[in-house]
Amino acid sequence: MAIGKLYGIGVGPGDPELVTIKAARIIKETDIIFAPKSRNGKPSVALNIVQGIIDERETECEILQPLFPMTEDKEELDKSWDDAAQMLFEKLETGLDAVFVTLGDPTIFSTFSYVSKRLQKMGVEVVLVPGIPAMTACSTTAGIQLTEQDDIMVVVPKVDERLPKILPYVDTVVAMKTSRHLDVLEECINKDPREKEIVSVQNCTMEDENIVHGFVDNKKYFSTSIIKFKKNN
Amino acid sequence: MAIGKLYGIGVGPGDPELVTIKAARIIKETDIIFAPKSRNGKPSVALNIVQGIIDERETECEILQPLFPMTEDKEELDKSWDDAAQMLFEKLETGLDAVFVTLGDPTIFSTFSYVSKRLQKMGVEVVLVPGIPAMTACSTTAGIQLTEQDDIMVVVPKVDERLPKILPYVDTVVAMKTSRHLDVLEECINKDPREKEIVSVQNCTMEDENIVHGFVDNKKYFSTSIIKFKKNN
Repeated sequence: MAIGKLYGIGVGPGDPELVTIKAARIIKETDIIFAPKSRNGKPSVALNIVQGIIDERETECEILQPLFPMTEDKEELDKSWDDAAQMLFEKLETGLDAVFVTLGDPTIFSTFSYVSKRLQKMGVEVVLVPGIPAMTACSTTAGIQLTEQDDIMVVVPKVDERLPKILPYVDTVVAMKTSRHLDVLEECINKDPREKEIVSVQNCTMEDENIVHGFVDNKKYFSTSIIKFKKNN
Repeated sequence: MAIGKLYGIGVGPGDPELVTIKAARIIKETDIIFAPKSRNGKPSVALNIVQGIIDERETECEILQPLFPMTEDKEELDKSWDDAAQMLFEKLETGLDAVFVTLGDPTIFSTFSYVSKRLQKMGVEVVLVPGIPAMTACSTTAGIQLTEQDDIMVVVPKVDERLPKILPYVDTVVAMKTSRHLDVLEECINKDPREKEIVSVQNCTMEDENIVHGFVDNKKYFSTSIIKFKKNN
């Protein structure tokens, strides 16, 4: 029997209406749904986003929630991705297709990619479906343009020694998960002499969304800051 | 009478299924639809994407297609944006809401932003709805990860003297509209000694989509190249 196909589906930032029509259709048509959760006892954020779509299904589906711990411990992460890949493979081996729902987009800082690589090595066909990424969800929510004309934009997940070297040549910085590196980010941005506009968005399009002008000084995980440098001309 | 509200809606890269549920709902509920076209006699690409959604409407709507010429002549562009803003304002003044459909996302290199600025100055409330941007449409279509772990990504609309300065510090480059600057882009990327993977996508998710490994040497307008540098560690 042929091995089932795996859909890696981006479900966007949080608002269930920001799922695409394509993602919704595939979620309704596929029999097995994988939704990662970060902690036992805490529901999967990605699953919450598509629960309404699942409720509209005419047939039952199986929902599995593998644990993807929020840790930077490489060994622990590797083990969780191995386990998830194994769990998925056992289902796909029965010939059924499966969906893996992931926050934002599956090609931008998505944990799905690590599981996907393992499954591709095992011979599984993976089809990616794009989702609204955090950065454009944040910019549209805040009503701020990310790029216009010949603007160059840089996206950084964590500030290291490279950002100060890039900074003079870019017009827009999108700093993701800023709670992990707020002090260095703020220091680095403030050193740039150009006039700038800074907007931070936390839990974008979720119920407790928070939009702040400037940086925010709390530890919410889903925090993105957009820094736009003004041009002289 | 209150002035109507303007929705700036991203309709994604081309596949009508890559429109969000939210965008589809607003397009079905709003009475006036603006869809820019680049040439007289040539249908609006954005309108084509949502035509199926418009056909599902229970009530009629008015569709207007202002001309946004593909030119770099600043005076000609300014005039077209002024004209479009005026055309839109006259409709919004009647108290009706309007939708402006734009390819990709309204905050990433979108001509909508220039019209939107003019209307905001005239007192119009503008609400942005994100769409799948070209870059993640291309990466998912090509099955390539844009960013993982601590990768830094840079997005450039046109190659100038800044790219060689940024290049050594980034892991991923997304070069948009590459037909405008292919020679300099190729030269610049080839100078980087790192091992790299290059994928180019033209007319992503449209009927004549073309995925090529390496750069492409033709003049299609919607061409995006993704360059991923491999890490030594």
